[in-house]
Amino acid sequence: MWKYIKHGSITSVDGFTAAGIHCGLKKIKKDLALILSDVPCSVAGTFTLNKVKAAPLIISQKMINKKNKVKAILINSGNANACTGEAGYNDALEVQTYSAEKMNLPVDEILISSTGVIGQRMNIESFKKGIDAISNQLSKEGGISAAEAITTTDMKKKHFAVTVQLSFGNVIIGGIAKGSGMIMPNMATMLAFLSTDADIDQALLHKMLSRSVSNSFNRISVDGETSTNDMVVLLSNHKFKNKILEFSTDAEMFQAALTDIMIKMAKAIAADGEGATKLITINIYNAKSKDDANAVGKALANSPLVKTAINGSDANWGRIISAVGNSGVDFIPENLNIKFGEMLILNSNYRANFNESEAKKILDENEVIISVDLKQGEEKSTWWTCDFSEQYVRINSSYRS
Amino acid sequence: MWKYIKHGSITSVDGFTAAGIHCGLKKIKKDLALILSDVPCSVAGTFTLNKVKAAPLIISQKMINKKNKVKAILINSGNANACTGEAGYNDALEVQTYSAEKMNLPVDEILISSTGVIGQRMNIESFKKGIDAISNQLSKEGGISAAEAITTTDMKKKHFAVTVQLSFGNVIIGGIAKGSGMIMPNMATMLAFLSTDADIDQALLHKMLSRSVSNSFNRISVDGETSTNDMVVLLSNHKFKNKILEFSTDAEMFQAALTDIMIKMAKAIAADGEGATKLITINIYNAKSKDDANAVGKALANSPLVKTAINGSDANWGRIISAVGNSGVDFIPENLNIKFGEMLILNSNYRANFNESEAKKILDENEVIISVDLKQGEEKSTWWTCDFSEQYVRINSSYRS
Repeated sequence: MWKYIKHGSITSVDGFTAAGIHCGLKKIKKDLALILSDVPCSVAGTFTLNKVKAAPLIISQKMINKKNKVKAILINSGNANACTGEAGYNDALEVQTYSAEKMNLPVDEILISSTGVIGQRMNIESFKKGIDAISNQLSKEGGISAAEAITTTDMKKKHFAVTVQLSFGNVIIGGIAKGSGMIMPNMATMLAFLSTDADIDQALLHKMLSRSVSNSFNRISVDGETSTNDMVVLLSNHKFKNKILEFSTDAEMFQAALTDIMIKMAKAIAADGEGATKLITINIYNAKSKDDANAVGKALANSPLVKTAINGSDANWGRIISAVGNSGVDFIPENLNIKFGEMLILNSNYRANFNESEAKKILDENEVIISVDLKQGEEKSTWWTCDFSEQYVRINSSYRS
Repeated sequence: MWKYIKHGSITSVDGFTAAGIHCGLKKIKKDLALILSDVPCSVAGTFTLNKVKAAPLIISQKMINKKNKVKAILINSGNANACTGEAGYNDALEVQTYSAEKMNLPVDEILISSTGVIGQRMNIESFKKGIDAISNQLSKEGGISAAEAITTTDMKKKHFAVTVQLSFGNVIIGGIAKGSGMIMPNMATMLAFLSTDADIDQALLHKMLSRSVSNSFNRISVDGETSTNDMVVLLSNHKFKNKILEFSTDAEMFQAALTDIMIKMAKAIAADGEGATKLITINIYNAKSKDDANAVGKALANSPLVKTAINGSDANWGRIISAVGNSGVDFIPENLNIKFGEMLILNSNYRANFNESEAKKILDENEVIISVDLKQGEEKSTWWTCDFSEQYVRINSSYRS
């Protein structure tokens, strides 16, 4: 059992403070976030699969691979510090070192992360002034400001926290995330930072994070792009004194709650995709294998023709079946069934005797559920995406200007 | 050596007539085309790889696989006759049989092809009246009307013809094509019909078609979608009495000209992609393998972030390098070079010291050439795509209405 906390965030977990401020990497909006734990934490992370990796991501990935314990995460938006070469790498080290001195921490206890424009050097002076300012503004309420400061073209802040009832008491998982463009499965493909007071050792923490990521952040797509900077990080401060052991019912419950909060974050990211007007949930049923179910889900989540049809509330099931046909998965087209919400749109043998205006009503909602039954086996998969609007193009044809 | 014929089309080849008319499958525009040869032709074809195949495509593919000689191709736009089940399959047979009777031809000498909305039955009565009318309107000039009648959301008719100088005289290759949405490599992914008077047997004709398709139609992408109906067909009427033998210089010359006219058609399709304002040519240089070069070309041609940036004339090389990083190909990001036209945008070690306003001028042209040098090996590949505009979304959010 678990229950969401109202206005929850990464600071809903005891021992974590945070802040989000404007330091000048963006023109007006908040662009710097800091998260601090009062004790060193075990940490697990997953990172972009793009061959091109941003400097701060390379640094943080190395730290996590070394199984360092960490106390802080410093995140900026407005500049990705990617494709900036050795100079950019040194910039990242410089802000990391500067913040370590400022907070009186060992440098290897501070993870760093960036998001924004690729290929431009950061304004280090603004960044340092930001570090001076932010380290005095950390608070228990600051998780929501931090959620705001890590956004780029996001329209909404994304922050959640959940209380998980275990056999020996309640633990908390909290987190903040950002998404928007360049969202595509296989690895995080956005930023998400989570905290917990549950006592989980690093090895188990990593296993749990990977499992939950593969059922949440790796099942969303906005535009099929994977960025150079994307990471998901989970910190455990071990405040709760009962250790969670592998293969226990407590571990199962914690895993389920972790997946649930990550799905909440992933759906919030998909719903807030660049230019999105609708969240689309795609359920694939009765595939021959898990891989097949995922290949079909991914093909639908990435199909511009499906996503524009949903944008126009057009019950164009032909585009759905055509996208399934392009997924590379073997199936019998005549057997396929398609539902919008609870409404059967396409029955076997291409029977499509639905009421167009009723279907349009379903597609006019903010949340649309498309279910595809392959009738080939017993595996299933759920994906999330958003519709594809003129606004997406408007945002992305002039991102740098 | 070869030379393009002004206003050339599939009827530029001696012995071919054609027509294009309106019969009522669309509201106002031409929707029915007929191509007729005065003698039976050898025929080669390539077909969509989508698992979902339209009824007329299945019928024509079977005929070509049986090595039938054919005299006619009947093509309608406005309705794809895909996902229409047994009833739709029978509709396709019925119009094929009806046109055979009308033209006094064996039914297995008429290929059929459709393009348009998926999942709706065709209006057979309108179609039959159209067949009655069109068979009286065939002419030497009709190739251009036929090119018009096979279009859907295309803005321009696509028709070309080329005179090829061989050792024993000149042969001609002519063709018509349609494209627009759902354009994506691996197979034709649009309609193209070509004719020639060169004497080439069916086996060689098929090899030559496949080779030319893989360097032309399979190197374009509008939106990463492959349709249920797409085919490329080449007819040879053997009028020219010198047989072209495999491994001859004449065969090489013919092959080169065939690839050239198909690239012309493919580029016309990419330039006329739904909502396109620019043709984008993507040259990949110095890849480790041909597969690598193609994977990178395909990743760039399908990247919404690259295509929206070009739409906005934004010299956002970060999105290009990020898309290369997502292609799955191994490379050293620091070594990558990127050019727009002749202008070096990104030099090794991420040096990007270009003049933004000069770059914008290059990107403002109707034709943009992006060159990516991977510095990994010696293989190269060229792809064509178009920019991604708000108009694409506008067209596709309300295609059926």
